[in-house]
Amino acid sequence: MTGGVRFREAVLSDLDAIVRLLADDALGAERETPPGAAGGLPEETGAARAYVAAFEAIERDPNHVLLVGESAGSVCAVLQLSFLPHLTYEGGWRAQIEGVRVAREARGRGVGRALIEEAVTRARVRRCHLVQLTTDRRRPEALAFYRALGFEATHHGMKLHLRQGRKGGTDG
Amino acid sequence: MTGGVRFREAVLSDLDAIVRLLADDALGAERETPPGAAGGLPEETGAARAYVAAFEAIERDPNHVLLVGESAGSVCAVLQLSFLPHLTYEGGWRAQIEGVRVAREARGRGVGRALIEEAVTRARVRRCHLVQLTTDRRRPEALAFYRALGFEATHHGMKLHLRQGRKGGTDG
Repeated sequence: MTGGVRFREAVLSDLDAIVRLLADDALGAERETPPGAAGGLPEETGAARAYVAAFEAIERDPNHVLLVGESAGSVCAVLQLSFLPHLTYEGGWRAQIEGVRVAREARGRGVGRALIEEAVTRARVRRCHLVQLTTDRRRPEALAFYRALGFEATHHGMKLHLRQGRKGGTDG
Repeated sequence: MTGGVRFREAVLSDLDAIVRLLADDALGAERETPPGAAGGLPEETGAARAYVAAFEAIERDPNHVLLVGESAGSVCAVLQLSFLPHLTYEGGWRAQIEGVRVAREARGRGVGRALIEEAVTRARVRRCHLVQLTTDRRRPEALAFYRALGFEATHHGMKLHLRQGRKGGTDG
């Protein structure tokens, strides 16, 4: 039971709530500037402008979808779903999941599972042959969660950071 | 020394050579239909049409680049570079590398390293804060190669295959 959560594409007015979700996490706290933090959203800071610019880039491109779960009028879950064309696998499209978060108060109700299932359904509708994601090795519970949903950890996920000054060390 | 290899964006007439490169690999052989295989390119088979459609989808989108290395008039290396907008990391763009191949006869000359460096340079020009890729656990030599270039294996790369009938098990 997902307790009355409905999934839909995000709109700009969800952005503050989404950024709060991204930041409310041990790894995310290192690299996000949530609304209300010193200099954070909704003031016109550099971080706030960058979040809006990224939101608009995602919204403008039909191959990227920001999916939110809404419960009792509040955003309680989010992920980004991207559809990527590739030559490999005889020229197939893949779906890629990134930035998955479920609000603390919404956990333990199957919201995360329902969110991923919604993404997989959308991947099938777009005729993707594969859904992929990477998950930080420091999140063993996430690995178990995705395994239970049928994902296999067949690959190493490797990152090269280009800007040392940027927040955070690794991503989710 | 990369022995006179020049890197450029692929054009449609490179496609046969690229598909041959993708297929000339222990894992790729399981899931690609190279030109000249029974029913393969350049005949108008389903696989050939799918490769062309994927090529066109990549070429049409300025956020995807098929990069080839050319030596003495032949394509000897390929990768796909994708630029992806994300809300995470205060709204940053990432570069993602996929489908990396170097022709057997071009190996041992630093072509792979130069190809990745070309991709990283393009990621910097596009102001990406991160370059990411996944590599199959069955390619330990690839893991060492990317580590030597500064990539860190901080994540698990997880895949969920949606079509059982499709070629291959996992990707590169």
